[in-house]
Amino acid sequence: MTPYHPGTHLIATLDCTDTCLLQQFEEYKALVDILISTYELKKLGEVYHNFLPAGFTGIVCLSESHLSIHTWPEYGKINLDIYLSNYQKENDGIVDLVFEAIVQFFKGTILDIQKLKR
Amino acid sequence: MTPYHPGTHLIATLDCTDTCLLQQFEEYKALVDILISTYELKKLGEVYHNFLPAGFTGIVCLSESHLSIHTWPEYGKINLDIYLSNYQKENDGIVDLVFEAIVQFFKGTILDIQKLKR
Repeated sequence: MTPYHPGTHLIATLDCTDTCLLQQFEEYKALVDILISTYELKKLGEVYHNFLPAGFTGIVCLSESHLSIHTWPEYGKINLDIYLSNYQKENDGIVDLVFEAIVQFFKGTILDIQKLKR
Repeated sequence: MTPYHPGTHLIATLDCTDTCLLQQFEEYKALVDILISTYELKKLGEVYHNFLPAGFTGIVCLSESHLSIHTWPEYGKINLDIYLSNYQKENDGIVDLVFEAIVQFFKGTILDIQKLKR
């Protein structure tokens, strides 16, 4: 049996001054689908939900683990998790690339970031 | 506007010697549904997936944030996330109660646990 290879779980909070993209999930979901395709990740399913009056949550279950986002437009904040296992291939670099793409999409400032090996 | 109240995100790895419950999601899902009902959390959607030959992943999207699990029966390991915001009510105590119930269900030993305020 191959030894267990811990993956990287990146946990971040972003600050966003332009909160338009934090209101509803549709544009973010389109970005995530492109990233999943670009980096050859495998989506098993997803849940997206728009809150009233604004803000959304989205969870994508991947064969490699998961992505999650919770937005707080009233505070200009985003809670983000990107967790990719290295079970079938080395995905540590992809965690960083996905994170950079999401930060760029929201024009976010990183308030807090942690990387757990798990 | 009420100030932002960070919630608790509990991130843990469990070791399980009895790996029967790590094979397929059905019994764990039933537990989670009971916990959601007991602690009056609001489920927005969920994705569960059984891998072949064994192991599962499950993500429950909550109005309060999310629960996720990834099991590795071949290594006797579980990766668990329980993240509940305190936006509508104080949920820090419920994070602990949900975690204790899941540890007990799997008869798990805690290999690693972290609690992030976010």
